[in-house]
Amino acid sequence: MTNKQILLKSRPEGWVSADNFEVASAPIPEPAKGEMLLQAIYMSVDPYMRGRMNDVKSYVPPFQIGEPCQAGIVGKVVASNGGKYGVGTYLTGMGLWANYMVSNGEGFQPVEAGLAPLSYYLGVLGMPGMTAYVGLKGVANLQEGEQLFVSAASGAVGQVVGQIGKNMGCHVAGSAGSDDKVAYLTDELGFDAAFNYKTDNVYKAVAATNPKGIDVYFENVGGPVLEAVISNLNFNARVALCGMISNYNATLEDMPPGPRNMAILVGRSVKMQGFIVFNYPDLCAEWVKLAAGWLKSGKLKYRESVAEGIENAPQAFVDMLQGKNFGKQVVRLADD
Amino acid sequence: MTNKQILLKSRPEGWVSADNFEVASAPIPEPAKGEMLLQAIYMSVDPYMRGRMNDVKSYVPPFQIGEPCQAGIVGKVVASNGGKYGVGTYLTGMGLWANYMVSNGEGFQPVEAGLAPLSYYLGVLGMPGMTAYVGLKGVANLQEGEQLFVSAASGAVGQVVGQIGKNMGCHVAGSAGSDDKVAYLTDELGFDAAFNYKTDNVYKAVAATNPKGIDVYFENVGGPVLEAVISNLNFNARVALCGMISNYNATLEDMPPGPRNMAILVGRSVKMQGFIVFNYPDLCAEWVKLAAGWLKSGKLKYRESVAEGIENAPQAFVDMLQGKNFGKQVVRLADD
Repeated sequence: MTNKQILLKSRPEGWVSADNFEVASAPIPEPAKGEMLLQAIYMSVDPYMRGRMNDVKSYVPPFQIGEPCQAGIVGKVVASNGGKYGVGTYLTGMGLWANYMVSNGEGFQPVEAGLAPLSYYLGVLGMPGMTAYVGLKGVANLQEGEQLFVSAASGAVGQVVGQIGKNMGCHVAGSAGSDDKVAYLTDELGFDAAFNYKTDNVYKAVAATNPKGIDVYFENVGGPVLEAVISNLNFNARVALCGMISNYNATLEDMPPGPRNMAILVGRSVKMQGFIVFNYPDLCAEWVKLAAGWLKSGKLKYRESVAEGIENAPQAFVDMLQGKNFGKQVVRLADD
Repeated sequence: MTNKQILLKSRPEGWVSADNFEVASAPIPEPAKGEMLLQAIYMSVDPYMRGRMNDVKSYVPPFQIGEPCQAGIVGKVVASNGGKYGVGTYLTGMGLWANYMVSNGEGFQPVEAGLAPLSYYLGVLGMPGMTAYVGLKGVANLQEGEQLFVSAASGAVGQVVGQIGKNMGCHVAGSAGSDDKVAYLTDELGFDAAFNYKTDNVYKAVAATNPKGIDVYFENVGGPVLEAVISNLNFNARVALCGMISNYNATLEDMPPGPRNMAILVGRSVKMQGFIVFNYPDLCAEWVKLAAGWLKSGKLKYRESVAEGIENAPQAFVDMLQGKNFGKQVVRLADD
């Protein structure tokens, strides 16, 4: 038995491909005194990881060439050398793109295996769900009945954003990258309106799906959608900057032009704010309780794409950046 | 004796010219019961007026074709029909591009003629000075010792922004449009560094003049300076969006591309916020007291360009938008 790992092989210039990663085999590590051996069951692939592949200053250090990449995981304690949690405990936290790892438990929390599928702790009950809640409550200060728009609306974060908005009595519209996704938003998640940004005229579609303008924009994509949204912002609108996935694979020279209409932000007193979810620990904890209740009562639905096996993690990551996933993308590394 | 007025003749497409205005003569108006006749002594031309020439939704209604444009003025009560203030009182408030107007006093405040030159009430002691203070204190929450950068730094607002920063012990850098202006910033106003955005490489100059990055950017210009600044923002930086003068005379199609590096705002938790100075009345009042003291003690310097005569107001306005002024641009309509 060996421990398969995914290492960063090279830093991408422009579009990332699975070739920027390599699969390596290593012995299963031995937990030292006070450590546990964790077997990963699910690992997460998320847009922010693209940033970690570059060697630039950000809120998390870059991935290192020749080292296993990091990812949120859900794992099980399979051996313990006097570690913090007993064998059989399920934990979630920042782990590795690997089948096995050792940990002293720092940065890991136990999860209740019966409450929800384990993979949900990487999505709706994990960082993406918290990001949705923090962006709306902590950053944009969304109020009952406001006009909310979200891009990448069927994604890990977007689907939660929209449903929080609906549960707060807001008018909710969103954009997504296929007709299936658009139908999912309006038919399954209760969005008031949605459009396909790949086939629709983005300017017209943003205006048509937000007839009373936009009070809060939850930004995941950048590019032309951002520009069209700015033109439709209301006075005192708030823009929670969660991500700009359209820019992540471009060098500055290739980068799509930024919004030409930024002067609107001045005239309409708009606040636009980037944020890091982990700077809002109280809201994160609040969200997990709220979401667990909503999942149980049916007020919150959740959709995932599951890739199988660690070898497929790099391709799942690249596909997710290209919008080929439908719902939150995770990779299953072992049976639950 | 007639009342010369400047009317909006046509709405500009792209660059405004003096031909978009026309000079008209009207009888001097008679104050009705409860009104006063004001003679304007100074009127202000400001960048925000370019926005009012367009027929679009903003925080103030657009100028109307065939009607006198509005402007901040300082005037003297020359006749009163039972009005709020007596003959000889100096008032400042929102008036007209005109030698005379009647008013019931609403929106006007008396000014102390001896405290400072009357024109200062249109600049350092008026809306531009308040805008500097509100942007730094109310929006960007500038702290002692931080790294501050301001564009259009020798302008009506910028020169005040930089001096507030210096008086708070900040590192202050700025950009301006001529070598004379740059020398004024560093030699007269005590800026730590400055550059000429028309002749220097903007990217290199922003980095070189802000060696510890930028905590607070006071944004007046948009365009390439904004993009270069974004690349040099520190974590948790704040951008107070006061204006984007480089965009005011462009149609959306001709607009310079927006910043390509907006994704930095996400990764560095940046807050970018547009604001309207009149939404912060307490800070405005605080500023006038503080500034009066600073002017007296020499902690605040102030430079103006003065155009002579109402006929020259349209050209002074156009020249100001092109950066031909040096310091706050006002128009003198009558002797003090």
